[in-house]
Amino acid sequence: MSLKGTLYIISAPSGAGKTSLVRQLLSRDAQVRVSVSHTTRAMRPGEANGTDYNFVTQAQFNDMINDGQFLEFAEVFDNKYGTSQTWVQQELDQGTDVILEIDWQGAAQVRRLMPEAVSIFILPPSREALRARLTGRGQDDVSVIERRMADAVSEMSHYAEFDYMVINDEFDLALSELQAVLVTRRLRQSAQQQRHAGLITDLLSE
Amino acid sequence: MSLKGTLYIISAPSGAGKTSLVRQLLSRDAQVRVSVSHTTRAMRPGEANGTDYNFVTQAQFNDMINDGQFLEFAEVFDNKYGTSQTWVQQELDQGTDVILEIDWQGAAQVRRLMPEAVSIFILPPSREALRARLTGRGQDDVSVIERRMADAVSEMSHYAEFDYMVINDEFDLALSELQAVLVTRRLRQSAQQQRHAGLITDLLSE
Repeated sequence: MSLKGTLYIISAPSGAGKTSLVRQLLSRDAQVRVSVSHTTRAMRPGEANGTDYNFVTQAQFNDMINDGQFLEFAEVFDNKYGTSQTWVQQELDQGTDVILEIDWQGAAQVRRLMPEAVSIFILPPSREALRARLTGRGQDDVSVIERRMADAVSEMSHYAEFDYMVINDEFDLALSELQAVLVTRRLRQSAQQQRHAGLITDLLSE
Repeated sequence: MSLKGTLYIISAPSGAGKTSLVRQLLSRDAQVRVSVSHTTRAMRPGEANGTDYNFVTQAQFNDMINDGQFLEFAEVFDNKYGTSQTWVQQELDQGTDVILEIDWQGAAQVRRLMPEAVSIFILPPSREALRARLTGRGQDDVSVIERRMADAVSEMSHYAEFDYMVINDEFDLALSELQAVLVTRRLRQSAQQQRHAGLITDLLSE
Protein backbone atom coordinates (compact mmCIF):
# COMPACT_ATOMS: atom_id res chain seq x y z
CA MET A 1 0.00 0.00 0.00
CA SER A 2 1.50 3.32 -1.03
CA LEU A 3 1.57 6.39 1.21
CA LYS A 4 -1.51 8.56 0.77
CA GLY A 5 -1.58 12.34 0.95
CA THR A 6 -3.66 14.28 3.46
CA LEU A 7 -6.59 16.50 2.50
CA TYR A 8 -6.55 19.92 4.17
CA ILE A 9 -9.49 22.27 4.30
CA ILE A 10 -8.48 25.88 4.92
CA SER A 11 -11.24 28.38 5.57
CA ALA A 12 -11.29 31.99 6.69
CA PRO A 13 -13.34 35.14 6.39
CA SER A 14 -12.37 37.55 3.60
CA GLY A 15 -9.61 39.77 4.94
CA ALA A 16 -7.93 37.15 7.11
CA GLY A 17 -5.07 36.69 4.66
CA LYS A 18 -5.81 33.08 3.73
CA THR A 19 -4.87 33.38 0.05
CA SER A 20 -1.46 34.93 0.78
CA LEU A 21 -0.72 32.34 3.45
CA VAL A 22 -1.64 29.44 1.19
CA ARG A 23 0.42 30.88 -1.67
CA GLN A 24 3.52 31.12 0.56
CA LEU A 25 2.88 27.67 1.97
CA LEU A 26 2.81 26.20 -1.55
CA SER A 27 6.06 27.94 -2.48
CA ARG A 28 7.83 26.44 0.55
CA ASP A 29 6.40 22.94 0.53
CA ALA A 30 6.77 20.83 -2.61
CA GLN A 31 4.63 18.02 -1.20
CA VAL A 32 1.37 19.97 -1.25
CA ARG A 33 -0.87 21.30 -4.02
CA VAL A 34 -3.98 23.44 -3.96
CA SER A 35 -7.14 22.32 -5.70
CA VAL A 36 -8.23 24.47 -8.65
CA SER A 37 -12.00 24.89 -8.53
CA HIS A 38 -14.38 24.43 -11.43
CA THR A 39 -16.61 27.41 -12.13
CA THR A 40 -19.29 28.53 -14.55
CA ARG A 41 -18.44 32.20 -14.24
CA ALA A 42 -16.78 34.03 -17.12
CA MET A 43 -13.00 34.22 -17.27
CA ARG A 44 -11.68 37.65 -16.30
CA PRO A 45 -8.74 39.49 -17.85
CA GLY A 46 -5.49 38.03 -16.56
CA GLU A 47 -7.03 34.73 -15.50
CA ALA A 48 -5.87 31.44 -16.99
CA ASN A 49 -7.96 28.32 -17.45
CA GLY A 50 -6.62 25.51 -15.26
CA THR A 51 -4.64 27.89 -13.06
CA ASP A 52 -7.15 30.28 -11.52
CA TYR A 53 -10.16 28.11 -12.23
CA ASN A 54 -11.25 25.35 -14.53
CA PHE A 55 -13.80 27.30 -16.57
CA VAL A 56 -16.76 25.20 -17.69
CA THR A 57 -20.27 25.80 -19.04
CA GLN A 58 -23.43 25.47 -16.99
CA ALA A 59 -24.21 22.24 -18.87
CA GLN A 60 -20.77 20.77 -18.15
CA PHE A 61 -21.05 21.76 -14.49
CA ASN A 62 -24.49 20.19 -14.19
CA ASP A 63 -23.21 16.98 -15.79
CA MET A 64 -20.43 16.86 -13.21
CA ILE A 65 -22.98 17.31 -10.42
CA ASN A 66 -25.11 14.50 -11.82
CA ASP A 67 -22.04 12.27 -12.11
CA GLY A 68 -21.26 12.91 -8.44
CA GLN A 69 -17.90 14.38 -9.41
CA PHE A 70 -17.91 17.21 -6.86
CA LEU A 71 -16.56 16.91 -3.38
CA GLU A 72 -18.39 20.16 -2.69
CA PHE A 73 -20.07 22.85 -4.75
CA ALA A 74 -21.99 26.05 -4.23
CA GLU A 75 -23.84 28.70 -6.18
CA VAL A 76 -22.86 32.33 -5.61
CA PHE A 77 -24.58 35.14 -7.56
CA ASP A 78 -25.80 32.76 -10.31
CA ASN A 79 -22.31 31.29 -10.74
CA LYS A 80 -21.41 27.78 -9.65
CA TYR A 81 -18.13 26.77 -8.00
CA GLY A 82 -17.04 23.25 -7.18
CA THR A 83 -14.12 20.99 -6.21
CA SER A 84 -13.44 17.94 -8.37
CA GLN A 85 -13.27 14.81 -6.26
CA THR A 86 -11.56 12.94 -9.11
CA TRP A 87 -8.59 15.33 -9.18
CA VAL A 88 -8.32 15.47 -5.39
CA GLN A 89 -8.38 11.68 -5.07
CA GLN A 90 -5.74 11.25 -7.78
CA GLU A 91 -3.38 13.60 -5.99
CA LEU A 92 -3.97 11.99 -2.59
CA ASP A 93 -3.41 8.53 -4.11
CA GLN A 94 -0.04 9.71 -5.45
CA GLY A 95 0.98 10.80 -1.95
CA THR A 96 0.50 14.52 -2.53
CA ASP A 97 -1.18 16.60 0.15
CA VAL A 98 -4.06 18.70 -1.17
CA ILE A 99 -5.39 22.01 0.14
CA LEU A 100 -8.96 23.12 -0.46
CA GLU A 101 -9.57 26.84 0.01
CA ILE A 102 -13.30 26.79 0.61
CA ASP A 103 -15.89 28.32 2.91
CA TRP A 104 -17.55 26.70 5.92
CA GLN A 105 -20.39 25.28 3.84
CA GLY A 106 -17.97 23.60 1.45
CA ALA A 107 -15.98 22.38 4.45
CA ALA A 108 -19.10 20.77 5.90
CA GLN A 109 -19.79 18.98 2.59
CA VAL A 110 -16.21 17.71 2.34
CA ARG A 111 -16.17 16.42 5.93
CA ARG A 112 -19.21 14.27 5.23
CA LEU A 113 -17.52 12.63 2.21
CA MET A 114 -13.96 12.59 3.56
CA PRO A 115 -14.08 12.63 7.36
CA GLU A 116 -10.30 12.10 7.55
CA ALA A 117 -9.73 15.60 6.11
CA VAL A 118 -7.83 17.98 8.42
CA SER A 119 -9.45 21.40 8.69
CA ILE A 120 -7.86 24.70 9.65
CA PHE A 121 -9.60 28.02 10.27
CA ILE A 122 -7.70 31.29 9.96
CA LEU A 123 -8.76 34.29 12.03
CA PRO A 124 -7.66 37.93 11.80
CA PRO A 125 -5.95 39.32 14.92
CA SER A 126 -8.70 41.82 15.80
CA ARG A 127 -11.93 43.33 14.58
CA GLU A 128 -10.14 46.58 13.73
CA ALA A 129 -7.54 44.76 11.63
CA LEU A 130 -10.30 42.90 9.81
CA ARG A 131 -12.22 46.09 9.11
CA ALA A 132 -9.06 47.78 7.87
CA ARG A 133 -8.37 44.92 5.48
CA LEU A 134 -11.95 44.91 4.22
CA THR A 135 -11.93 48.67 3.75
CA GLY A 136 -9.20 48.34 1.18
CA ARG A 137 -8.17 51.59 -0.46
CA GLY A 138 -11.03 53.48 1.12
CA GLN A 139 -13.02 53.87 -2.08
CA ASP A 140 -16.02 51.81 -1.02
CA ASP A 141 -19.26 52.91 0.61
CA VAL A 142 -19.71 52.33 4.30
CA SER A 143 -22.66 50.08 3.48
CA VAL A 144 -20.44 47.90 1.25
CA ILE A 145 -17.85 47.58 4.00
CA GLU A 146 -20.54 46.83 6.59
CA ARG A 147 -21.85 44.08 4.33
CA ARG A 148 -18.35 42.60 4.04
CA MET A 149 -17.99 42.71 7.83
CA ALA A 150 -21.34 40.97 8.27
CA ASP A 151 -20.31 38.27 5.78
CA ALA A 152 -16.98 37.85 7.60
CA VAL A 153 -18.71 37.52 10.98
CA SER A 154 -21.09 34.96 9.49
CA GLU A 155 -18.17 32.91 8.16
CA MET A 156 -16.23 33.23 11.42
CA SER A 157 -19.19 31.99 13.45
CA HIS A 158 -18.26 28.50 12.19
CA TYR A 159 -14.69 28.53 13.52
CA ALA A 160 -15.42 25.84 16.09
CA GLU A 161 -16.15 23.24 13.37
CA PHE A 162 -12.45 23.17 12.42
CA ASP A 163 -9.69 20.98 13.85
CA TYR A 164 -7.09 23.75 14.12
CA MET A 165 -7.17 27.51 14.43
CA VAL A 166 -4.44 29.89 13.28
CA ILE A 167 -4.45 33.61 14.15
CA ASN A 168 -2.92 35.64 11.33
CA ASP A 169 -1.35 38.41 13.38
CA GLU A 170 2.28 38.17 12.28
CA PHE A 171 2.28 36.69 8.79
CA ASP A 172 5.49 34.67 9.19
CA LEU A 173 4.35 33.18 12.47
CA ALA A 174 0.98 32.19 11.01
CA LEU A 175 2.76 30.68 8.01
CA SER A 176 5.08 28.63 10.22
CA GLU A 177 2.05 27.41 12.16
CA LEU A 178 0.32 26.23 8.99
CA GLN A 179 3.55 24.50 7.97
CA ALA A 180 3.78 22.84 11.38
CA VAL A 181 0.35 21.26 10.94
CA LEU A 182 1.40 19.70 7.62
CA VAL A 183 4.79 18.56 8.93
CA THR A 184 3.29 17.02 12.05
CA ARG A 185 0.78 15.03 10.02
CA ARG A 186 3.65 13.49 8.06
CA LEU A 187 5.41 12.44 11.27
CA ARG A 188 2.55 10.24 12.41
CA GLN A 189 3.60 6.68 13.16
CA SER A 190 1.55 5.08 10.38
CA ALA A 191 2.91 7.42 7.70
CA GLN A 192 6.51 7.20 8.91
CA GLN A 193 6.39 3.39 9.03
CA GLN A 194 5.49 3.32 5.36
CA ARG A 195 7.94 6.06 4.38
CA HIS A 196 10.88 4.55 6.27
CA ALA A 197 10.14 0.83 6.01
CA GLY A 198 13.63 0.17 4.63
CA LEU A 199 15.36 2.08 7.41
CA ILE A 200 13.36 0.29 10.09
CA THR A 201 14.26 -3.11 8.65
CA ASP A 202 17.92 -2.04 8.56
CA LEU A 203 17.91 -0.76 12.13
CA LEU A 204 16.16 -3.77 13.62
CA SER A 205 18.10 -6.51 11.83
CA GLU A 206 20.16 -8.68 14.20
CA MET B 1 -11.06 26.25 33.21
CA SER B 2 -7.47 27.24 32.51
CA LEU B 3 -5.47 25.95 29.59
CA LYS B 4 -3.56 22.76 30.43
CA GLY B 5 -0.13 21.84 29.11
CA THR B 6 0.55 18.71 27.09
CA LEU B 7 2.69 15.83 28.32
CA TYR B 8 5.25 14.61 25.76
CA ILE B 9 7.10 11.33 26.01
CA ILE B 10 10.30 11.30 23.98
CA SER B 11 12.13 8.00 23.64
CA ALA B 12 15.05 6.82 21.53
CA PRO B 13 17.91 4.34 21.60
CA SER B 14 21.25 5.60 22.93
CA GLY B 15 23.05 7.24 20.04
CA ALA B 16 19.98 8.69 18.33
CA GLY B 17 20.73 12.21 19.58
CA LYS B 18 17.67 12.58 21.80
CA THR B 19 19.37 14.53 24.57
CA SER B 20 20.86 17.13 22.19
CA LEU B 21 17.54 17.54 20.39
CA VAL B 22 15.61 18.03 23.62
CA ARG B 23 18.18 20.51 24.91
CA GLN B 24 17.87 22.63 21.76
CA LEU B 25 14.09 22.33 21.82
CA LEU B 26 14.02 23.69 25.39
CA SER B 27 16.26 26.63 24.45
CA ARG B 28 13.92 27.62 21.61
CA ASP B 29 10.56 27.05 23.24
CA ALA B 30 9.79 28.84 26.51
CA GLN B 31 6.49 27.04 26.96
CA VAL B 32 8.00 23.62 27.59
CA ARG B 33 10.06 22.12 30.42
CA VAL B 34 11.72 18.77 30.85
CA SER B 35 11.05 16.63 33.89
CA VAL B 36 14.01 16.07 36.20
CA SER B 37 14.00 12.46 37.36
CA HIS B 38 14.45 11.26 40.92
CA THR B 39 17.25 8.76 41.41
CA THR B 40 18.91 6.80 44.17
CA ARG B 41 22.28 6.69 42.44
CA ALA B 42 25.20 8.74 43.78
CA MET B 43 25.77 12.23 42.45
CA ARG B 44 28.72 12.40 40.05
CA PRO B 45 31.26 15.20 39.74
CA GLY B 46 29.74 18.12 37.86
CA GLU B 47 26.14 17.08 38.54
CA ALA B 48 23.76 19.33 40.45
CA ASN B 49 20.84 18.22 42.58
CA GLY B 50 17.57 19.38 41.05
CA THR B 51 19.15 20.02 37.65
CA ASP B 52 20.55 16.70 36.49
CA TYR B 53 18.52 14.61 38.91
CA ASN B 54 16.72 14.92 42.17
CA PHE B 55 19.03 12.78 44.30
CA VAL B 56 17.23 10.84 47.03
CA THR B 57 17.96 7.89 49.31
CA GLN B 58 16.62 4.39 48.78
CA ALA B 59 14.24 4.97 51.72
CA GLN B 60 12.94 8.25 50.28
CA PHE B 61 12.47 6.64 46.88
CA ASN B 62 10.58 3.71 48.38
CA ASP B 63 8.32 6.07 50.32
CA MET B 64 7.52 7.86 47.05
CA ILE B 65 6.67 4.54 45.41
CA ASN B 66 4.39 3.61 48.31
CA ASP B 67 2.70 7.02 48.12
CA GLY B 68 2.03 6.48 44.41
CA GLN B 69 4.07 9.56 43.58
CA PHE B 70 5.75 8.14 40.49
CA LEU B 71 4.32 8.36 37.03
CA GLU B 72 6.90 5.75 36.08
CA PHE B 73 9.99 4.25 37.66
CA ALA B 74 12.59 1.62 36.91
CA GLU B 75 15.58 -0.07 38.47
CA VAL B 76 18.82 -0.11 36.48
CA PHE B 77 21.98 -1.73 37.95
CA ASP B 78 20.66 -1.46 41.53
CA ASN B 79 19.79 2.22 41.10
CA LYS B 80 16.23 3.46 40.88
CA TYR B 81 15.00 6.21 38.56
CA GLY B 82 11.52 7.72 38.54
CA THR B 83 9.34 10.60 37.32
CA SER B 84 7.39 12.58 39.93
CA GLN B 85 3.72 12.75 38.99
CA THR B 86 3.20 15.64 41.41
CA TRP B 87 5.71 17.88 39.64
CA VAL B 88 4.47 16.93 36.17
CA GLN B 89 0.85 17.58 37.10
CA GLN B 90 1.68 20.97 38.64
CA GLU B 91 3.42 22.08 35.46
CA LEU B 92 0.62 20.83 33.21
CA ASP B 93 -1.97 22.55 35.41
CA GLN B 94 -0.07 25.82 34.97
CA GLY B 95 -0.27 25.44 31.19
CA THR B 96 3.36 24.38 30.72
CA ASP B 97 4.14 21.54 28.34
CA VAL B 98 6.30 18.84 29.92
CA ILE B 99 8.77 16.49 28.23
CA LEU B 100 9.68 13.13 29.72
CA GLU B 101 12.90 11.62 28.38
CA ILE B 102 12.28 7.98 29.25
CA ASP B 103 12.62 4.54 27.70
CA TRP B 104 9.87 2.41 26.17
CA GLN B 105 9.07 0.75 29.49
CA GLY B 106 8.60 4.09 31.22
CA ALA B 107 6.55 5.26 28.24
CA ALA B 108 4.24 2.27 28.62
CA GLN B 109 3.75 3.04 32.34
CA VAL B 110 2.99 6.72 31.64
CA ARG B 111 0.49 5.91 28.87
CA ARG B 112 -1.53 3.79 31.27
CA LEU B 113 -1.78 6.64 33.79
CA MET B 114 -1.97 9.54 31.31
CA PRO B 115 -3.37 8.23 28.03
CA GLU B 116 -3.57 11.76 26.64
CA ALA B 117 0.25 11.99 26.59
CA VAL B 118 1.76 12.50 23.14
CA SER B 119 4.68 10.18 22.42
CA ILE B 120 7.53 10.64 19.97
CA PHE B 121 10.20 8.12 19.03
CA ILE B 122 13.53 9.28 17.58
CA LEU B 123 15.44 7.00 15.24
CA PRO B 124 18.99 7.30 13.89
CA PRO B 125 19.30 7.62 10.09
CA SER B 126 21.04 4.27 9.56
CA ARG B 127 22.59 1.32 11.33
CA GLU B 128 26.07 2.55 10.40
CA ALA B 129 25.39 6.01 11.85
CA LEU B 130 24.09 4.42 15.05
CA ARG B 131 27.12 2.16 15.36
CA ALA B 132 29.45 5.12 14.77
CA ARG B 133 27.73 7.12 17.49
CA LEU B 134 27.87 4.20 19.93
CA THR B 135 31.53 3.55 19.15
CA GLY B 136 32.41 6.96 20.46
CA ARG B 137 36.12 7.70 20.53
CA GLY B 138 37.00 4.16 19.58
CA GLN B 139 38.39 3.22 22.98
CA ASP B 140 35.83 0.56 23.82
CA ASP B 141 35.94 -3.21 23.24
CA VAL B 142 33.99 -4.62 20.36
CA SER B 143 31.95 -6.62 22.87
CA VAL B 144 30.95 -3.41 24.69
CA ILE B 145 29.88 -1.78 21.43
CA GLU B 146 27.97 -4.91 20.40
CA ARG B 147 26.17 -4.83 23.72
CA ARG B 148 25.20 -1.17 23.17
CA MET B 149 23.95 -2.05 19.68
CA ALA B 150 21.86 -4.91 21.06
CA ASP B 151 20.38 -2.58 23.70
CA ALA B 152 19.62 0.00 21.02
CA VAL B 153 17.92 -2.58 18.80
CA SER B 154 15.88 -3.77 21.78
CA GLU B 155 14.73 -0.20 22.53
CA MET B 156 14.00 0.51 18.84
CA SER B 157 11.84 -2.60 18.54
CA HIS B 158 9.17 -0.59 20.40
CA TYR B 159 9.03 2.29 17.91
CA ALA B 160 5.52 1.39 16.76
CA GLU B 161 4.06 2.12 20.22
CA PHE B 162 4.68 5.86 19.71
CA ASP B 163 2.38 8.45 18.12
CA TYR B 164 5.08 10.17 16.07
CA MET B 165 8.43 9.19 14.65
CA VAL B 166 11.31 11.56 13.92
CA ILE B 167 14.43 10.48 12.00
CA ASN B 168 17.51 12.34 13.28
CA ASP B 169 19.46 12.54 10.03
CA GLU B 170 19.96 16.30 9.74
CA PHE B 171 19.87 17.71 13.27
CA ASP B 172 18.15 21.00 12.35
CA LEU B 173 15.46 19.22 10.36
CA ALA B 174 14.78 16.78 13.19
CA LEU B 175 14.64 19.69 15.63
CA SER B 176 12.15 21.58 13.47
CA GLU B 177 10.02 18.44 13.27
CA LEU B 178 9.95 18.09 17.05
CA GLN B 179 9.01 21.77 17.30
CA ALA B 180 6.24 21.26 14.75
CA VAL B 181 4.62 18.58 16.88
CA LEU B 182 4.51 20.92 19.89
CA VAL B 183 3.28 23.90 17.85
CA THR B 184 0.56 21.88 16.15
CA ARG B 185 -0.74 20.60 19.45
CA ARG B 186 -1.19 24.20 20.62
CA LEU B 187 -3.18 25.06 17.49
CA ARG B 188 -5.92 22.56 18.22
CA GLN B 189 -9.37 24.05 18.30
CA SER B 190 -10.03 23.35 21.99
CA ALA B 191 -6.75 24.95 23.10
CA GLN B 192 -7.07 27.95 20.79
CA GLN B 193 -10.64 28.61 21.91
CA GLN B 194 -9.45 28.94 25.49
CA ARG B 195 -6.31 30.91 24.59
CA HIS B 196 -8.15 33.38 22.32
CA ALA B 197 -11.55 33.58 23.98
CA GLY B 198 -11.36 37.38 24.11
CA LEU B 199 -10.44 37.69 20.45
CA ILE B 200 -13.27 35.39 19.40
CA THR B 201 -15.79 37.42 21.38
CA ASP B 202 -14.44 40.61 19.79
CA LEU B 203 -14.58 39.20 16.26
CA LEU B 204 -18.07 37.77 16.55
CA SER B 205 -19.76 40.71 18.24
CA GLU B 206 -22.46 42.33 16.09
